[in-house]
Amino acid sequence: MRVKKLNRKPSLIGWGSVVGKRESEGPLSDDFDIHDKGECFGMNTWEKAESEMQRIALNTALAKAKMGAESIEAVFAGDLQNQCVSSVFGLADFGAPFFGLYGACSTFAEALLLSAMLVDGGNFDTCAAVTSSHFCVAERQYRFPLEYGGQRTPTAQRTVTGAGAAIISSANGNFPRITEVMPGRIVNKGIKDANNMGAAMAPAAIDTIRDYFNETGYSPEDFDLILTGDLGAEGHATAMDYLLGYGIDLRKNYSDCGLMIYDINRQDMHAGGSGCGCSASVICGHIMKRFEKGELKNVLYVATGALMSPSTSKQGLSIPGIAHLVRIEAGRR
Amino acid sequence: MRVKKLNRKPSLIGWGSVVGKRESEGPLSDDFDIHDKGECFGMNTWEKAESEMQRIALNTALAKAKMGAESIEAVFAGDLQNQCVSSVFGLADFGAPFFGLYGACSTFAEALLLSAMLVDGGNFDTCAAVTSSHFCVAERQYRFPLEYGGQRTPTAQRTVTGAGAAIISSANGNFPRITEVMPGRIVNKGIKDANNMGAAMAPAAIDTIRDYFNETGYSPEDFDLILTGDLGAEGHATAMDYLLGYGIDLRKNYSDCGLMIYDINRQDMHAGGSGCGCSASVICGHIMKRFEKGELKNVLYVATGALMSPSTSKQGLSIPGIAHLVRIEAGRR
Repeated sequence: MRVKKLNRKPSLIGWGSVVGKRESEGPLSDDFDIHDKGECFGMNTWEKAESEMQRIALNTALAKAKMGAESIEAVFAGDLQNQCVSSVFGLADFGAPFFGLYGACSTFAEALLLSAMLVDGGNFDTCAAVTSSHFCVAERQYRFPLEYGGQRTPTAQRTVTGAGAAIISSANGNFPRITEVMPGRIVNKGIKDANNMGAAMAPAAIDTIRDYFNETGYSPEDFDLILTGDLGAEGHATAMDYLLGYGIDLRKNYSDCGLMIYDINRQDMHAGGSGCGCSASVICGHIMKRFEKGELKNVLYVATGALMSPSTSKQGLSIPGIAHLVRIEAGRR
Repeated sequence: MRVKKLNRKPSLIGWGSVVGKRESEGPLSDDFDIHDKGECFGMNTWEKAESEMQRIALNTALAKAKMGAESIEAVFAGDLQNQCVSSVFGLADFGAPFFGLYGACSTFAEALLLSAMLVDGGNFDTCAAVTSSHFCVAERQYRFPLEYGGQRTPTAQRTVTGAGAAIISSANGNFPRITEVMPGRIVNKGIKDANNMGAAMAPAAIDTIRDYFNETGYSPEDFDLILTGDLGAEGHATAMDYLLGYGIDLRKNYSDCGLMIYDINRQDMHAGGSGCGCSASVICGHIMKRFEKGELKNVLYVATGALMSPSTSKQGLSIPGIAHLVRIEAGRR
């Protein structure tokens, strides 16, 4: 059994979301706590700007949870920068025990999942999950310097400039709860096109979602929303098609954070958004707001990651994917 | 309280260690399960060789634990390659739920710690912790291509070519146990010299070791061995000096995996070994062998990591460190 039922149903007691210019011009604009009119957040490098987004996101989440940083027993954090330095420099000053994660774009789900399991097991009372990504940092690290003005293919996704932070707690009260989790496996179906991450990650989403429904016996109608992290237009369509072939019909209530964060056509965003900050900011902004308003009561969040590097692509290796699942339900324990 | 007492005392039921040429020529040679006469492990790139070491290490650990990969409910793994791809490509075929970690050279302790907490909390019955590093990969990624023949400073450490894997289980029996853990905090004392990681990481080791003894009331004599991961000659001396200033006298029983794995003078290894594979291979090779022989009964293992990247160094930032603590005790529950 890969699905883990969390009997203590850890609460999400605070959340914060921070985004850049393009994300603040998209359809979810009103749901993010803080945005910058550009991409710099008052810093003199994009790398430092990304760290600053994590700092602001965690402060916002702590304020909403009405607690100080000294209450956090463990921070689970990660990002896409080499050696995950955005998280380190953004979160060092909180002084909390720190666990660095790397799950590419799945990292926010990985962080929520580990936080929730450790609160469920009684190891910690209060954890934080924080992740980020930054368009300008990712472009120069993974692709081309921005000054080069490289063209993007139609299947390419845009790395979201954004961060999200959530506080996971054993506290009682009328909070959204993490009620089930399912860790992902590495799935590699041989896709080598680094400009089509949706295709590379979809098999992992399919593996996790299929096994979840098979193990639990639930059907998609049991959920208000089934939400992948950042499969984008390509991966979203692929996952829906294949799962339909397995008898799992997601046509009514399946969306993807990478498709929600931008108005793809109006903003010319090709296949949609991606990056650790994509689903982190959508969950900690838009989705949590809808839980607060009572519009959502039962959500399956499945974040996918492409576990490759520029070196593995240059050495001719295909792109493995992973998908971690977190179920969030409204209300009292 | 940062120290977490693990009431179920998770067992270490299997372990495997794999090293390269230089490590197999060092003082611990006989204690490693497998070594290559070179650095390639039958692969055509060093990156793939590193993945292969992780695969062999985990297979060795599973064989010793007399179980198949299907028993593993979660693998916690990491390495120093950008985007942690060594772990992904080395462990994908095991098909186990996968959690990617990044804690630089502290990653093996981070993996043991999370595995042990989740087994202690009842979330999982069987986890695996696997990490690696590879000298040739690290040189070209972090420093210079080997062909360049760059000179190293006296304070520089050599990245160990090695991997270690351990199986952490809720099983009963006469196994070494993880009885306490203490997650590290990010500590940054302003060191900027990327050729002196020992100095950069020592403050984190001091922070964790000092707080451990203060919180628990133990003294160093209560342990057979206190072992840091890879502070090397510089960091080992610094940590010992500062801790003496705090009234914690480590002069009798404190060593460092980076100092143990090489005969520093004979092998011309400057300040000693480093890398995720350093303490992983020493713990899963030498230390576990000494537990089996009954020579060790109570060990504090504190692995440190330098949480920087080449970019942060180029942008003038100092080097943050972290130190995670794992206490291993012999014998029955």
